[in-house]
Amino acid sequence: MATSWEERAADKQNRINDSIPQEWKIQTLPTEDSVLEFPKKSGILSDQELAITQSSASDLVKKLAQGELKAVDVTVAFCKRAALAHQLVNCCLEFFPETAIAQAKELDAYYEKHKKPVGSLHGLPISLKDQLRVKGLETSMGYVSWLGKYDTTDSVLVTLLRKAGAIFYTKTSVPQTLMVCETVNNIIGRTVNPRNKNWSCGGSSGGEGAMIGIRGGVIGVGTDIGGSIRVPSAFNFLYGIRPSHGRMPYAKMANSMEGQETVHSVVGPIAHSAEDLRLFLTSVLAEEPWKYDSKVVPIPWRYAEEDAVKSKLQTGGLTLGYYSCDGVVLPHPPILRGIEKVVSTLKENGHSVHPWTPYKHDFGHDLINNIYAADGCTDVLSSINASGEPSIPNIKDLLNPDAGQINMNELWDVHLQKWNYQSEYLDKWRELEDKLGKEVDAIIAPITATAAIRHNQFRYYGYASVINLLDFTSVVVPVTFADKSVDLKKVDYQSLGQLDATVQAEYDPEAYHGAPIAVQVIGRKLSEEKTLAIAQEIGRLLGNAVTP
Amino acid sequence: MATSWEERAADKQNRINDSIPQEWKIQTLPTEDSVLEFPKKSGILSDQELAITQSSASDLVKKLAQGELKAVDVTVAFCKRAALAHQLVNCCLEFFPETAIAQAKELDAYYEKHKKPVGSLHGLPISLKDQLRVKGLETSMGYVSWLGKYDTTDSVLVTLLRKAGAIFYTKTSVPQTLMVCETVNNIIGRTVNPRNKNWSCGGSSGGEGAMIGIRGGVIGVGTDIGGSIRVPSAFNFLYGIRPSHGRMPYAKMANSMEGQETVHSVVGPIAHSAEDLRLFLTSVLAEEPWKYDSKVVPIPWRYAEEDAVKSKLQTGGLTLGYYSCDGVVLPHPPILRGIEKVVSTLKENGHSVHPWTPYKHDFGHDLINNIYAADGCTDVLSSINASGEPSIPNIKDLLNPDAGQINMNELWDVHLQKWNYQSEYLDKWRELEDKLGKEVDAIIAPITATAAIRHNQFRYYGYASVINLLDFTSVVVPVTFADKSVDLKKVDYQSLGQLDATVQAEYDPEAYHGAPIAVQVIGRKLSEEKTLAIAQEIGRLLGNAVTP
Repeated sequence: MATSWEERAADKQNRINDSIPQEWKIQTLPTEDSVLEFPKKSGILSDQELAITQSSASDLVKKLAQGELKAVDVTVAFCKRAALAHQLVNCCLEFFPETAIAQAKELDAYYEKHKKPVGSLHGLPISLKDQLRVKGLETSMGYVSWLGKYDTTDSVLVTLLRKAGAIFYTKTSVPQTLMVCETVNNIIGRTVNPRNKNWSCGGSSGGEGAMIGIRGGVIGVGTDIGGSIRVPSAFNFLYGIRPSHGRMPYAKMANSMEGQETVHSVVGPIAHSAEDLRLFLTSVLAEEPWKYDSKVVPIPWRYAEEDAVKSKLQTGGLTLGYYSCDGVVLPHPPILRGIEKVVSTLKENGHSVHPWTPYKHDFGHDLINNIYAADGCTDVLSSINASGEPSIPNIKDLLNPDAGQINMNELWDVHLQKWNYQSEYLDKWRELEDKLGKEVDAIIAPITATAAIRHNQFRYYGYASVINLLDFTSVVVPVTFADKSVDLKKVDYQSLGQLDATVQAEYDPEAYHGAPIAVQVIGRKLSEEKTLAIAQEIGRLLGNAVTP
Repeated sequence: MATSWEERAADKQNRINDSIPQEWKIQTLPTEDSVLEFPKKSGILSDQELAITQSSASDLVKKLAQGELKAVDVTVAFCKRAALAHQLVNCCLEFFPETAIAQAKELDAYYEKHKKPVGSLHGLPISLKDQLRVKGLETSMGYVSWLGKYDTTDSVLVTLLRKAGAIFYTKTSVPQTLMVCETVNNIIGRTVNPRNKNWSCGGSSGGEGAMIGIRGGVIGVGTDIGGSIRVPSAFNFLYGIRPSHGRMPYAKMANSMEGQETVHSVVGPIAHSAEDLRLFLTSVLAEEPWKYDSKVVPIPWRYAEEDAVKSKLQTGGLTLGYYSCDGVVLPHPPILRGIEKVVSTLKENGHSVHPWTPYKHDFGHDLINNIYAADGCTDVLSSINASGEPSIPNIKDLLNPDAGQINMNELWDVHLQKWNYQSEYLDKWRELEDKLGKEVDAIIAPITATAAIRHNQFRYYGYASVINLLDFTSVVVPVTFADKSVDLKKVDYQSLGQLDATVQAEYDPEAYHGAPIAVQVIGRKLSEEKTLAIAQEIGRLLGNAVTP
């Protein structure tokens, strides 16, 4: 093994490159800012392979289950497109098409013999963030020091997806530590947005955002402790769900600050539609994850919760809250327009939409930042320092090593503050319901202050992270794209504070033109069925629920 | 206010005594060891009042809902009997019959006007451990230093019980700190077992155990972080449930080590029957506690889970595991006989019962003890020291202040160990299921190593506390009573270790003769419906499910 961190990183880069077959290599890399459409004209995918990779996961599993598609064909198609994706946007930390194709062949053989699929995801390739463990592979988490350690066991989620018939072929890039909403590490560098290389793909599940965005995968698995599923979804015009803690199995995954349980990281899917997110969740729950991972609550998919939403759609409509600004940082004009568009669309369709007053989001934002740094960053710094690599520049966005470690009684006080804050937030929710005389089904809000952000400008996590602190279920819905002709820069803006002033100053209509705009749909804790059904309806009303 | 801790305690004692009306005072206290039957012959309760207090909660709410009983009559009956209970076994830290009767009058007026009950607990007095906050009252938690502080808000559970129509009339005694399974504090001294004053009533919800045991209440609310609901249930021949964390609302309750979230204390009922436990749980869940307390999972009562048990009873029977010894401390002969009796009864009735190998209970026991003391006992010691009162002698049973505080990274490591242990335990459960080819519905085990214990001899918490660490649902079922003629002391016993030798040496067939014997029925996390239904069936088979 190489000794310097630079050599270890170079070795890993070479190994990734070597995993791409010669015939899938791009001869001349495109020079345009956007590479989103490149796969279609690359000549490397056949028409059938292009059609497969343009399909929804729900369609694919249907055809696989009916024998209309072979797992091998689907797998090869996505492997090819993922290979292109990596060459175009630098998004893979592991790529293992041979293993994937072997797995696909086994599934095809099973189907041939039994005339039925092994499970609800039979033959579907699923892309994994490089935090999920797959036996025999490395899990670097963006740390050079973790390279060379090969996993001896699958993460529980991988085990259950495998049981359901999913195929694994890649593990995608993450920022060093995972505690950043852009995707940069010292192993392979930066992952960029397929829609424009000057924009971030988001993070920390940024490799997934880019990979699914360019359709090198159809469903990607990310994790979220402060926006890490939702931000890449938003920046790549995708749907993504942050389930509440305890809904999806996290056991045996790698993590920074493993054992930190004040605010839990959660795992969930990123996809092109709410329907595909639902396919993932229902498939995992069908495997009874609570019998494998003690943190999972024994709640099977509750069809009745979806039916209740459908019934409201047929009668009086939904009742929703919304906010455009959390009182800390005002979103850029494209995001404000996105919220407005969702609210007006809902109202036009007969739904009841009411302003929501964000409750102490400044407090929530400060509290969660203290939690992230509860150990004075001892844990992440030891993983960084073990190889001699430097910290990535973004690291201080979310982590402040200078704050020092808090003690046990201070931690317990933080826990109490968190619990009280969460319960007070529930009080506010009930108060609005009492005032309206009906149930408030969800809250519409920004997920970031900006459209798909320019590199090194992700400064404010509050829109995402306060929802993590509350442990609410949140689904990102893509809305539209920034437009320099309507999303004008504010003049004479009176800022809410220094951070707000900085963020607002960085808005540039020209640079953001065309960048994806999204909102999040927020439901109470463990409301995945209901919140996803509402998100699906919003997507349908916006006209973006159809796959291209 | 008095200044020395002794004066403050004496003042509180006087206030409790003054809260008992003169006509409810016992003129000559009995001298017998058992006071269980004293209320019947006291002459203070009328025949109707005796009948009311001998009823089940389920019968009472039925009659109250039908207008056959008045809330005032039921309340007065239980207030009288509770007053006797306090004089006999020293179990109250708050007694407020006037408030209770006023509340009952309001409920009767509501019923008179609307011809229907306010909720499912309309007019039912419920006894509360002195850890639940009731606006206007003190919550001492057994700390002298907390006296004189009056609560400005109800605990969420109190709010919801009140909405359901429950009446509050007493808050019962607890050991200083709550971290002990006997009930002793420096405010009112020791609470004793109504069946024999030489036995402990258990702890930390020992005041509840004694109060419900002598029928000064019909349902009592306790909490459990290491056996504190289950041990008093067992020692008083009662049913008690430790729900898993997140099923019942704990918000706004007082606590030692508030904010400690590595092992959660949970709240749950103690009663004379599984049916009454169920009444409590269904009534609280009907109020949607997850909309008030962020830690509560949104799982309404799942009738289908009960139906599944009933269906098994009608077809192939239940499949159960059991163990008599956890490998650390062998229970006394009466407890071993209790397990044997339950197992043989189940087998005779066609159920399938299999030995369960306790998985690393020694490790689990050590781990949870380290968690209890994670802050080096800073928190509890500061509450003790604030008044100058001494620590109760039992305090070192569970807390070791000399161990010192652990740091954040050590805590996170403990969290990981806990999670891994829990998930490994689930693996073992699945492995047995795979071996048997069917679902294992529950595990039968001892809840303590002894029958209702002699004072100052509670040394081993492992049978209870490992279940807390696992966060499994557990229901205590009373089985029978120690019998000196059959529960002989072991001769030439080869001990499992020093603690085991000490516990075993303390068995004395004469001293324990007649002491209640119980088992716990253990289900996976959040399996309250199923585990309770199984416990109910076991009680029925044992013939002890009928109220006296």
